[in-house]
Amino acid sequence: MAKLPEEEHPVKAFGWATRDQSGHLSPFNFSRRETGEEDVKFKVLYCGICHTDLHFIKNDFGLSIYPMVPGHEIVGEVTEVGSKVTKVKVGDRVGMGGIYGACGSCENCDNDYVAYCPKLIETYNGIDHDGTRTYGGYSDFMVANENFIVRVPDNIPLDAAAPLLCAGITVWSPLKYFGLGEPGKHIGIVGLGGLGHVAVRLAKALGSKVTVISTSPSKKNEALGHLGADSFLVSRDQDEMRAAMGTMDGIIDTVSAAHPISPLIDLLKTNGKLVIVGAPEKPPELPLFPLLLGRKAVIGSCGGGIKEMQEMIDFAAKHNITADIEVIPMDYVSTALERLEKGDVRYRFVIDIGNTLAATKP
Amino acid sequence: MAKLPEEEHPVKAFGWATRDQSGHLSPFNFSRRETGEEDVKFKVLYCGICHTDLHFIKNDFGLSIYPMVPGHEIVGEVTEVGSKVTKVKVGDRVGMGGIYGACGSCENCDNDYVAYCPKLIETYNGIDHDGTRTYGGYSDFMVANENFIVRVPDNIPLDAAAPLLCAGITVWSPLKYFGLGEPGKHIGIVGLGGLGHVAVRLAKALGSKVTVISTSPSKKNEALGHLGADSFLVSRDQDEMRAAMGTMDGIIDTVSAAHPISPLIDLLKTNGKLVIVGAPEKPPELPLFPLLLGRKAVIGSCGGGIKEMQEMIDFAAKHNITADIEVIPMDYVSTALERLEKGDVRYRFVIDIGNTLAATKP
Repeated sequence: MAKLPEEEHPVKAFGWATRDQSGHLSPFNFSRRETGEEDVKFKVLYCGICHTDLHFIKNDFGLSIYPMVPGHEIVGEVTEVGSKVTKVKVGDRVGMGGIYGACGSCENCDNDYVAYCPKLIETYNGIDHDGTRTYGGYSDFMVANENFIVRVPDNIPLDAAAPLLCAGITVWSPLKYFGLGEPGKHIGIVGLGGLGHVAVRLAKALGSKVTVISTSPSKKNEALGHLGADSFLVSRDQDEMRAAMGTMDGIIDTVSAAHPISPLIDLLKTNGKLVIVGAPEKPPELPLFPLLLGRKAVIGSCGGGIKEMQEMIDFAAKHNITADIEVIPMDYVSTALERLEKGDVRYRFVIDIGNTLAATKP
Repeated sequence: MAKLPEEEHPVKAFGWATRDQSGHLSPFNFSRRETGEEDVKFKVLYCGICHTDLHFIKNDFGLSIYPMVPGHEIVGEVTEVGSKVTKVKVGDRVGMGGIYGACGSCENCDNDYVAYCPKLIETYNGIDHDGTRTYGGYSDFMVANENFIVRVPDNIPLDAAAPLLCAGITVWSPLKYFGLGEPGKHIGIVGLGGLGHVAVRLAKALGSKVTVISTSPSKKNEALGHLGADSFLVSRDQDEMRAAMGTMDGIIDTVSAAHPISPLIDLLKTNGKLVIVGAPEKPPELPLFPLLLGRKAVIGSCGGGIKEMQEMIDFAAKHNITADIEVIPMDYVSTALERLEKGDVRYRFVIDIGNTLAATKP
């Protein structure tokens, strides 16, 4: 019989878990491995609540294993390192995203396309090399191979940096890989949520001209004023959309609710790229003629590599880019998930694990 | 009132035209302009019948203007050149594809992406700079700006070279632009028709490993033996398709009948590209998760540039690559179109204009 979560490894751990798809989380005792020679152990200080957490908590993909400790936007402070660790030392600030491990030997791993390694181990709801389950960052500490953590520069606030580890890298990777984040490029960002608002800031800092595309005219001031976008398009306004046809080199589509992609394709120039990072469950129709008549591409993108993540967070720190967050205590998490489902957050909940988790211990 | 086709220009011309969407063509008197200072006049010797001709003849796109002289896979011999022409001289062998003209000043024209110039003038069914209609290669001669013709090397047979001017460039352009035609790359070619069979030969000569993907197991010997593909996949054989998942760098999909693209996306490696060059009228569903989980792209491509076309035909001549053709006399064209509609041609009809058109003059 499989061991209980709190007995399968030698080191006691504590976090909050969901036991079923109700969306309700509660205190949870489990365990983690000893710090191996290539491992970094770090105290979790903050963890962002990604929209993906909600999908996994509610088993929207049919892949969830309970009990589950979510959380893959994790920042903290190193408390122990293995004998072969060279990347960080005790006391350093570190971060970890959705990738807990990978095969390390495939073409994708070799090229820092580790997010696409077929043997990827997710930070939670994954199966580790030893066959045990992985538990995420809604917990007191993490133990992970140094290859899958990044250093967090000192000048960036840890709480507002946490969402960069997933939301940030998810938009950074396509901006860089497809050459969209560059001076002279005009980029559309669809959706102004957790991913979108960070994408605007990163793309602007990379030198692109940035247009926010949204269904909500009410977000215009926020997009132009607070986030610094160059222009704003209401996707339901056909005149505005028509006037912007053929003007964009690329579009990052962060919206995970079902929506037609044809109007977005029309906004692209020849050779333009529509990069989808938020996948609706229902596949959209793909209009082929507009693709053919402009050699346009529709591309999916999912996370990014660890080198890319380090590059991104260093860049963010240099340009003072963080996420807009609402910091919450651990025991607010179920309420936060309800609010997230209604879109009631600007733009990311971040759990103050370091100051509030311990007090919830039974 | 608009002038009659035979009166609008000073030089009498003769070809075969369709007057309506019946699919029936018949002799047609019209006219072409005098040879301008940048123009090349050439006697048409052969003209391929592209599947697009059938679509335009039958008004499948709702864009057809009658009477229409089809034909955009045109080869012939130069009979007159304008004073500023430097590319060719009288007696040279030349070819012309689907592009008759363009603006010459946009970003696409500047980069030899002329196929995507928003002011592109098609070789037939187009509107020329002077407002008159363009008539294609099912005719005795052409007059065109030298920028839109290519030289045809002496060692390539003119009849079998004709289909390279559309079928050839349509598959060559994405093979080159997306870096798919290279040693070390594994390319899938979907559909073994006019485009597909040329794509196999070009990709092989470029050094790629080539797999033909077809619904018809009966084409296996042809693909492997006659065309030299490395392997063959029956798209309806789920075991074969499953075994080939994640093995291809790119796929050129030449099939214009509606078909699901999801099984093709599954064949791609990480960062793989599905390039669609034959557009079904009904848009397929786009499965997003497979795109996201492999940073895969679905891209449309349509023709190619003139420099690319020259490069392609020089390459084809060097490697003895031509299309497999059935040469027909001019007065067989309506029957050929009926056969083409039923897929009864291996692989391209080419009209022997030089030897058979004149005899059809009323």
